[in-house]
Amino acid sequence: MNTYDTIMKLALERGFYFPSCEIYGDAPAGFWDYGPTGVNMKNRFVELWRRELVRRDGMLEIDGSQIMSKSIFIASGHITNFTDPMIICKQCGSTFRADKHIAEITGHELPELASGSEIDNIIVENKLSCPKCGGPFEKSTRFNMMFKIGIGPSNDEAYLRPETCQSIFVDFPRIFKTMRGRLPLAIAQLGKSFRNEIAPRQSLLRLREFYQAEIEIFCNPNRLDEVPKFEEMKKKVLRLYINDSYQEITAQDAVDQLIIPNNLVAYYLTLLVLFYEKTGIDMNRTRLRQLSTSEKAFYASFAFDFEVETSIGWLELVACNYRSDYDLRGHSTVSKQNLHVIDPIDNTKVLPNVFELSMGIDRSIYSILEHSFFEDFEHERTVLRLRPYLAPILAGILPLITKDGLREKAQLIYSQLKLDFPVFYDESGSIGRRYRRLEEIGAPFAVTVDRQTLSDDTVTIRNRDTMLQLRIQISELSNYLHKEAYKLVS
Amino acid sequence: MNTYDTIMKLALERGFYFPSCEIYGDAPAGFWDYGPTGVNMKNRFVELWRRELVRRDGMLEIDGSQIMSKSIFIASGHITNFTDPMIICKQCGSTFRADKHIAEITGHELPELASGSEIDNIIVENKLSCPKCGGPFEKSTRFNMMFKIGIGPSNDEAYLRPETCQSIFVDFPRIFKTMRGRLPLAIAQLGKSFRNEIAPRQSLLRLREFYQAEIEIFCNPNRLDEVPKFEEMKKKVLRLYINDSYQEITAQDAVDQLIIPNNLVAYYLTLLVLFYEKTGIDMNRTRLRQLSTSEKAFYASFAFDFEVETSIGWLELVACNYRSDYDLRGHSTVSKQNLHVIDPIDNTKVLPNVFELSMGIDRSIYSILEHSFFEDFEHERTVLRLRPYLAPILAGILPLITKDGLREKAQLIYSQLKLDFPVFYDESGSIGRRYRRLEEIGAPFAVTVDRQTLSDDTVTIRNRDTMLQLRIQISELSNYLHKEAYKLVS
Repeated sequence: MNTYDTIMKLALERGFYFPSCEIYGDAPAGFWDYGPTGVNMKNRFVELWRRELVRRDGMLEIDGSQIMSKSIFIASGHITNFTDPMIICKQCGSTFRADKHIAEITGHELPELASGSEIDNIIVENKLSCPKCGGPFEKSTRFNMMFKIGIGPSNDEAYLRPETCQSIFVDFPRIFKTMRGRLPLAIAQLGKSFRNEIAPRQSLLRLREFYQAEIEIFCNPNRLDEVPKFEEMKKKVLRLYINDSYQEITAQDAVDQLIIPNNLVAYYLTLLVLFYEKTGIDMNRTRLRQLSTSEKAFYASFAFDFEVETSIGWLELVACNYRSDYDLRGHSTVSKQNLHVIDPIDNTKVLPNVFELSMGIDRSIYSILEHSFFEDFEHERTVLRLRPYLAPILAGILPLITKDGLREKAQLIYSQLKLDFPVFYDESGSIGRRYRRLEEIGAPFAVTVDRQTLSDDTVTIRNRDTMLQLRIQISELSNYLHKEAYKLVS
Repeated sequence: MNTYDTIMKLALERGFYFPSCEIYGDAPAGFWDYGPTGVNMKNRFVELWRRELVRRDGMLEIDGSQIMSKSIFIASGHITNFTDPMIICKQCGSTFRADKHIAEITGHELPELASGSEIDNIIVENKLSCPKCGGPFEKSTRFNMMFKIGIGPSNDEAYLRPETCQSIFVDFPRIFKTMRGRLPLAIAQLGKSFRNEIAPRQSLLRLREFYQAEIEIFCNPNRLDEVPKFEEMKKKVLRLYINDSYQEITAQDAVDQLIIPNNLVAYYLTLLVLFYEKTGIDMNRTRLRQLSTSEKAFYASFAFDFEVETSIGWLELVACNYRSDYDLRGHSTVSKQNLHVIDPIDNTKVLPNVFELSMGIDRSIYSILEHSFFEDFEHERTVLRLRPYLAPILAGILPLITKDGLREKAQLIYSQLKLDFPVFYDESGSIGRRYRRLEEIGAPFAVTVDRQTLSDDTVTIRNRDTMLQLRIQISELSNYLHKEAYKLVS
């Protein structure tokens, strides 16, 4: 079984994630639910994001509505541009995403902005036909990926947001004013976005409903190098991937050599890399890839993708786009509001530019799972080597046997810890089997209550990775877990 | 200004919440965004919910998709029953929610299940006409409150879920199996639900897109009194409201007197009340109201609402419904899956019954804000007396002046605390004014850096409520904040 399938099996069998509405035949593709194990892990990932990006940098976080008015997406360009090329079979009516289908069959990667006639020519040249029935294709069309919503009895047109950042852009004026903002101002948001993919696939990797954690940094385009906090991280070595070749280079050198355009962008890219180091992803299998002109989104003036290598190829986890004043200019024009702000430092009126870090949460969770997965053949076990602060369960509380008061003792310890830590009580099966179950979902510790516990109030703590056991006082457990578990490793 | 308007002003001016898409004329009604202050408070409320309900009771939490297949809502009854009565003006086409409109004009409260002819009769009897143009109404119709979604190029019918619990019901079989569930099993979920209200209003109180925290307890209907954990809370006095009169009575007595039907329901209602005690809501202005047959939702065999009194009347914060086997039976019939499980205790095959606690997060936030709001005329200040663990900001870090190294010292303290606590650095304006700003958003502490700090590394900590100051070592700050701030008060 390849690693993707192994992780999928684990996810399905151990409560990480599974298809939504799965008991129904009409369950739409591209929708997945997090189970109890997955929710815990995702929540702890979000906590880490809040700590290491939002609070570390002093960002402001908002939480906006997912349904937004039509005007927003006229201004953002999504009504016109947020489309995928589609081909439909004349004979059986099956639909395919044209670029993906062409790439799969011919190996030919179409640019993001390929025209309809380019696509039609490739189909004719390569004599492509419907893989389902062999029929010919109609001329390609473009399919808008936004979900349309009708509001109220009058059915007013609105949309589910295709990216969370639109909430940030339209809330910017109020936030800037009421929170006494100054440029550069970073506003963050965690929430759902929705894209009506033609062909969703690969579980968490191409969803129609997914979690984004987006950060939009509003800045004065004339002062992009005035970033004092860059000082403390400018020596960090970044792993860049530019024109198909790797460069390991400090953030400062990347700016000096004009690879990264300014200190502000360099600072936030470095902050992002430092964040991912703490997730346990193998950083030697990551890169900041500079996007070529044909690959960039329609609003980006330049872009890096933070990518991670997995068993099914390189995945984009974070799109880092310099959106210039594209967004505020568009919203200003359509809403007829003046969105300029004063920058007191150079005493100018400025329409802020935006640099963004647009993170996919679901893909990040998948990547962490894959990079943490370890088949320990020596000990015949599979282990998720998750960082303690990302583990869905921090410790299992296990009575060695259920008799002689050990069950009650273990349950008491569980009830003393459960409010403060994600712990789990388990008494069923042999102790070895219970260890295996905990290791499989990445619990870093197992606390075992044995006969000695009854006489001296000590328990053993078993370390998932070393498999070593330590005996400590019950009264020390909480401190131990707190210290060990929240120790940030980078 | 009445309290509702005062809270609204505070919310708008201090980043709690504000209308979504507000810079646009076509912003749909009933959608609100949380600003930075509101997000922090909401996140901390959710943490409390996780701690005091989910973890305390050992519930499993899931996070399901918001878009769900049509079959789900055939089975749940929402396609047929989830409607509001609507009247349309023949002349100008304005639409009104019939029951609300009739209640407003005539004071006559229609039952939940009033028929169309009942409504039409009342309109004729009371000679009601359109309040906008004076025109006559058409015969009343029913408006389905679900938002319809088209999936993929073939536009398959799906819906935004009108309640989060449907994800829990359809995920139940997998969760029960993979998490080795045993009845009673409580599954919780925090997430968004969507209702296409005819007339959304009052900011967070009647939204079209809103946060629910729902808990569904799957139980064996033959063992509803076998709840050992009820023992420790059966003496808790509940404030019940039944047939228009109050009864303060212990949970146990309520069961004995058949007011609450069984121990399981009594246990969860008590757990809920204990949770709200910790939110700072004035419990003397709350009640568990038993719903009459005409008021209950279509799936409930009996129901209590946990309500709180506010300046605009009693608000339902939590619907506590005994849904019997309504949901699993419906899903079993439509999906043709057998959803029975084995209960090893009485060794029977059972289709679980469900008792639910369906909490509105947004309304809870509003109620906490209102109950915490305090106009301190003596000291000419307004204070949000939020519990420290719910406060959006735990402490402000304030240099008394910005000169002589005080700014740098204060910024250093801020940077030492910011990763672990929601703290806020503020140097602008007089110290008194900075205190006021912190009090207004409920920050329980203000840490001031003064000249003495430079010589002996101490700071003052000012308590929001007592306004008293305490001088402590900087090295003790983190411990102090941790201890004071996370001390749960009930």
